Amino acid sequence: MSTDNTLATDREAAVTAEVLAAFAETADPRLREVIGSLVEHLHAFARDIRLTESEWAAAIEFLTRAGHITDSRRQEFILLSDVLGLSMLTVAINEPQAPGATEATVFGPFFVDDAPEIPLDGDIAQGASGVACYVSGEVRSVTGEPIPGARIEVWEADDDGFYDVQYPDGRTAGRGWLSSGTDGEYRFWSVLPAPYPIPHDGPVGDLLTATGRGPMRPAHLHFMVTAPGFRKLITHIFLAEDPYLACDAVFGVKDSLVVDVSWHHDTAAPDGSHPQGDWTSIVFDLVLAPHGDQ
Amino acid sequence: MSTDNTLATDREAAVTAEVLAAFAETADPRLREVIGSLVEHLHAFARDIRLTESEWAAAIEFLTRAGHITDSRRQEFILLSDVLGLSMLTVAINEPQAPGATEATVFGPFFVDDAPEIPLDGDIAQGASGVACYVSGEVRSVTGEPIPGARIEVWEADDDGFYDVQYPDGRTAGRGWLSSGTDGEYRFWSVLPAPYPIPHDGPVGDLLTATGRGPMRPAHLHFMVTAPGFRKLITHIFLAEDPYLACDAVFGVKDSLVVDVSWHHDTAAPDGSHPQGDWTSIVFDLVLAPHGDQ
Ligand SMILES: [Fe+2]
Ligand SMILES: [Fe+2]
Repeated sequence: MSTDNTLATDREAAVTAEVLAAFAETADPRLREVIGSLVEHLHAFARDIRLTESEWAAAIEFLTRAGHITDSRRQEFILLSDVLGLSMLTVAINEPQAPGATEATVFGPFFVDDAPEIPLDGDIAQGASGVACYVSGEVRSVTGEPIPGARIEVWEADDDGFYDVQYPDGRTAGRGWLSSGTDGEYRFWSVLPAPYPIPHDGPVGDLLTATGRGPMRPAHLHFMVTAPGFRKLITHIFLAEDPYLACDAVFGVKDSLVVDVSWHHDTAAPDGSHPQGDWTSIVFDLVLAPHGDQ
Repeated sequence: MSTDNTLATDREAAVTAEVLAAFAETADPRLREVIGSLVEHLHAFARDIRLTESEWAAAIEFLTRAGHITDSRRQEFILLSDVLGLSMLTVAINEPQAPGATEATVFGPFFVDDAPEIPLDGDIAQGASGVACYVSGEVRSVTGEPIPGARIEVWEADDDGFYDVQYPDGRTAGRGWLSSGTDGEYRFWSVLPAPYPIPHDGPVGDLLTATGRGPMRPAHLHFMVTAPGFRKLITHIFLAEDPYLACDAVFGVKDSLVVDVSWHHDTAAPDGSHPQGDWTSIVFDLVLAPHGDQ
């Protein structure tokens, strides 16, 4: 093995030194720091595992496939980051320190920019299949002040586990945005989300298969909440007793984000409507950290 | 800064531990080793630089652009590996230990599989522009035995710095393969290669610009040599006094691969032909390590 060979070690160290020297003149100090660290860690990885030529070629092929399957509705590089835990680590690194703030989790690849606005008590389902679910709570600061006018983006998979962007007909369903009311309150109708597999017919799916991992995510509803003076919150709520809570393919679960679902049958809902048959409800408060808090 | 915060450090370490545990059941031991090391190094990189959400998003966008510019004639991921020195490090890790063997360098993105066969003294230029160059030498083992019948693939840029795959008309030029003769000898006509920029109208070019690096490679002629019982050799020859020898964008230069060019004018060539005007010649022996030697 070359690892025991001083000549080989010297030769490898010389390559790394030459590359670091080439990047040393980078004018932007942050870029210089990032690229220098990237070279150090990437080279250390290759040396540690004694990367072979055929493994290198397989990595090039993997990235090429990931690039070619990626389009405006499929983002394989985000999936790759997700299953390697880089997305959740990035969340952890950037999590606000404010005690009491709602914890963040992964953004995921299924957000779209132009979701429809809905009023309080409106319905984001828009034809997404599933048991009706009334979601409500309060947007407030860590010091307890209600936050009116916060923009709350929500998106979810239907009970077949598909987001609208995965529907072949391109229609919008299971997403929308609303503003919190004058007391910071929010409430909307949706459907109870279902566990779903991340898209696994591409290279990331092959990686999961080769490593004996499953593609499933526990059921969840995505939130992105913005309000002037507060830090943007990107999170999910998960459902208690979901069978996949302990093995989320993208490592997104946090205990504080797991909520209980209340089941109702033939009763009036809080908005005065009277849904037919079974319906459900979830209460979850959204607590925002002050802006600039890291 | 979160780095000083034990809570943050614990939270980040917990993410990494969870991801490593998820991959721990990988059945293939080599894949388990590779993916475990990848996770460790990738996460250490993100923690060390305190990767921000917007930098993460920029990395996803960079890889997406690289994927979309890559096709059968353009390989941005190989370029990325090249400019980060990963390609040359992989060469160094896998370099044979046999003393006296010709040193290896990067493969590069411009090889194609179906180059035409040419006889000894044949011409690989096929219309590539440039001063005629007669390349000759001997293929032999590190113990000095000639190797007849070695397959020698050669490819080069023309004196405008373009490989044939970069020509808009798709014709083949500046590439071919020949077999070494009964005494291991090889000889062929080509054109004197020119320095060229690696393709830099994509994300890798943007990275070079942002880091104050140039895209140029010193002039070179690519070789790939295979013979039964010997280790495949992938290398270049570079030309002495090339202005880019000290700043190759892909770090491929090794002293032992730099050759002198002899200039001739109106004299007979070794194959008995009499080229018009200036022509050049290069002598370079190709010394193969035994098969299986690492
Ligand atoms: Fe999701
Ligand atoms: Fe080249």
